[in-house]
Amino acid sequence: MIVFLTDWGNSHYVGICKGVIRQISDSEIIDLTHEITSFNVREAMYILSRSFYHFPKNTVFLAVVDYGVGGSRKAIAAKTKNYYFVGPDNGLFTLVFEEEPPLEIRELNNKKFHYLDSNTFHGRDIFAPAAAHITNGNFKKLGDLLPNYATIPYIKPKKDSKSIFGEVAYIDKFGNIETNIPFEWLKDLDFIKIKNKRKLIEIPIVNFYSETETGQLLAHNDSTGFLEIAINQGNASKKLNLNSGDPLELIL
Amino acid sequence: MIVFLTDWGNSHYVGICKGVIRQISDSEIIDLTHEITSFNVREAMYILSRSFYHFPKNTVFLAVVDYGVGGSRKAIAAKTKNYYFVGPDNGLFTLVFEEEPPLEIRELNNKKFHYLDSNTFHGRDIFAPAAAHITNGNFKKLGDLLPNYATIPYIKPKKDSKSIFGEVAYIDKFGNIETNIPFEWLKDLDFIKIKNKRKLIEIPIVNFYSETETGQLLAHNDSTGFLEIAINQGNASKKLNLNSGDPLELIL
Amino acid sequence: MIVFLTDWGNSHYVGICKGVIRQISDSEIIDLTHEITSFNVREAMYILSRSFYHFPKNTVFLAVVDYGVGGSRKAIAAKTKNYYFVGPDNGLFTLVFEEEPPLEIRELNNKKFHYLDSNTFHGRDIFAPAAAHITNGNFKKLGDLLPNYATIPYIKPKKDSKSIFGEVAYIDKFGNIETNIPFEWLKDLDFIKIKNKRKLIEIPIVNFYSETETGQLLAHNDSTGFLEIAINQGNASKKLNLNSGDPLELIL
Repeated sequence: MIVFLTDWGNSHYVGICKGVIRQISDSEIIDLTHEITSFNVREAMYILSRSFYHFPKNTVFLAVVDYGVGGSRKAIAAKTKNYYFVGPDNGLFTLVFEEEPPLEIRELNNKKFHYLDSNTFHGRDIFAPAAAHITNGNFKKLGDLLPNYATIPYIKPKKDSKSIFGEVAYIDKFGNIETNIPFEWLKDLDFIKIKNKRKLIEIPIVNFYSETETGQLLAHNDSTGFLEIAINQGNASKKLNLNSGDPLELIL
Repeated sequence: MIVFLTDWGNSHYVGICKGVIRQISDSEIIDLTHEITSFNVREAMYILSRSFYHFPKNTVFLAVVDYGVGGSRKAIAAKTKNYYFVGPDNGLFTLVFEEEPPLEIRELNNKKFHYLDSNTFHGRDIFAPAAAHITNGNFKKLGDLLPNYATIPYIKPKKDSKSIFGEVAYIDKFGNIETNIPFEWLKDLDFIKIKNKRKLIEIPIVNFYSETETGQLLAHNDSTGFLEIAINQGNASKKLNLNSGDPLELIL
Repeated sequence: MIVFLTDWGNSHYVGICKGVIRQISDSEIIDLTHEITSFNVREAMYILSRSFYHFPKNTVFLAVVDYGVGGSRKAIAAKTKNYYFVGPDNGLFTLVFEEEPPLEIRELNNKKFHYLDSNTFHGRDIFAPAAAHITNGNFKKLGDLLPNYATIPYIKPKKDSKSIFGEVAYIDKFGNIETNIPFEWLKDLDFIKIKNKRKLIEIPIVNFYSETETGQLLAHNDSTGFLEIAINQGNASKKLNLNSGDPLELIL
């Protein structure tokens, strides 16, 4: 099974990659999502890390989100204990590889396994065919062994007697702030106090949006076990001026 | 076959549920739509009721749209003559069950058939696995028999010598007003007269948007046989201040 | 395999058509995209022509994008050397049929192969079932032979010693201007000079958006080998007032 993640929207670029896969493999293709914010590698890193372990063993994850800048990032495929991951070596797999350390990483530099040699559409020409070839058992042929992989810096959640630290994982389409702070650290609290623009803002912890008035900030447990900060019918990201990667400090 | 309906957009939450299904079942998964307006159970009720009968016998409908409020709605699965339906017991199946009366309803309270026990993501933890287990023939094991199901009140379309009554089924993404009034009741008319804000508005019945000027209201037969009220390149819902569930009266 | 293209968004109309297909055929269904701008047949023409050849031989393309106007366009299915195409005879296949000339065109007028006889939803009632019946080997039964097909006029890209001519293929969701001018014609240039509102605008050719300042126009090679004109974090279509089908002239 190939699970497909991009920042392309549900565009024909996604469809084309599926066509290329079908020229090589009959493996099922499931869309994880294509709604990653454009060029937001950090958001993709978090969403992939919160999703991959719900898929069956041997799933091949085809994740294509790049920075919108030049540079010489490699194209890679990695084998872990349970899965395969294919995508750009730009840090997208930072969190996934902490949980599923790569046993073997291949640089996708064997041109025999590329689709076209265009240099403008790596998803179609390098990554999608690599995922398809892995489902055919050809992981080792995709290219040379790589000793390591790129990571991106992020603030690991931590807790001391006075504070909880973490970062904004991503902003969802409603402007809700998804964090990397485990909600269980907050389970005995009625509210959080968050440092924002030199002020300390108190936000109630609720089970349902409807427990607050329209326009009010609220904190709750998102579907995947992390703190989410939202506004009932509003945009918390804009209100607090917080974006993906921004540091968070909660005062205990 | 599992047919999947939510209000989550094409997000990774949809993808994750498919992963959970694949851990249990190889059944095909088809998206009905994930573009239901957030928390709009009535819209989901109408869209499901206008869609389900186009799918083959034995299709399992996995429909997850909830109100954004607390409460103790049950999780259910129902077997009808031709189909299975899985989702929250919040009235979402009101119309479907009028057409396909449930022969057997199970509360999804057998935790052996849950995926995780998180209480924050019923789609992933209760509904998706239930749909998957049904495709494996385990409908009866999902939980206890329920004698009845929740409904939501709605205005059934009716006609007398002076008026036609109905309601707004939902507003589509263009602001078009989708109603529950059968278009065949209007087929001999050239226009409808609709009561709106104490005024009587006359709207021409047309076959194509292009028969009216830009910005003008028009009435026509939507794809599924019901009256739709729209504005050529405009937003009829805003213009008439009509939303899902609002009553409609057409004067004959 | 059926590859599905519409301007319906990811709505339940798409889901319903898949249900209808499944009543007839078990063939795999892949979405090319449903994000074509409403009623934009020209955009669909370009996107289909840049996508179809990435799919395996014998793929059936189900492409349903119509003008929002009345008229008596036929419903057709065509067999080419490598593929089948099903859709309205409104010019949508103009470019595809230049590359893959139709060997046999059928008008979809055999009502035995229609799903419902509603006249309001040709996608569900005529086109989707036709695509499904083709996967069952029934192409020839779909209706009468047609000697030719409709085309839409467009400006073929051409080059002389002073200028390059072409047209705007479509505008993508970011407002980027996708053209039909082959990028290889520009490969030795550092910038393009484009005629716009009687002015001559010079636009640098770059490899990455990040090579320009925010808000600046840029030209580059899109993923499929054609010139794209964009603004780094802006809307080039609005800035230059260029839309699908508008003529382009680049001064050499």
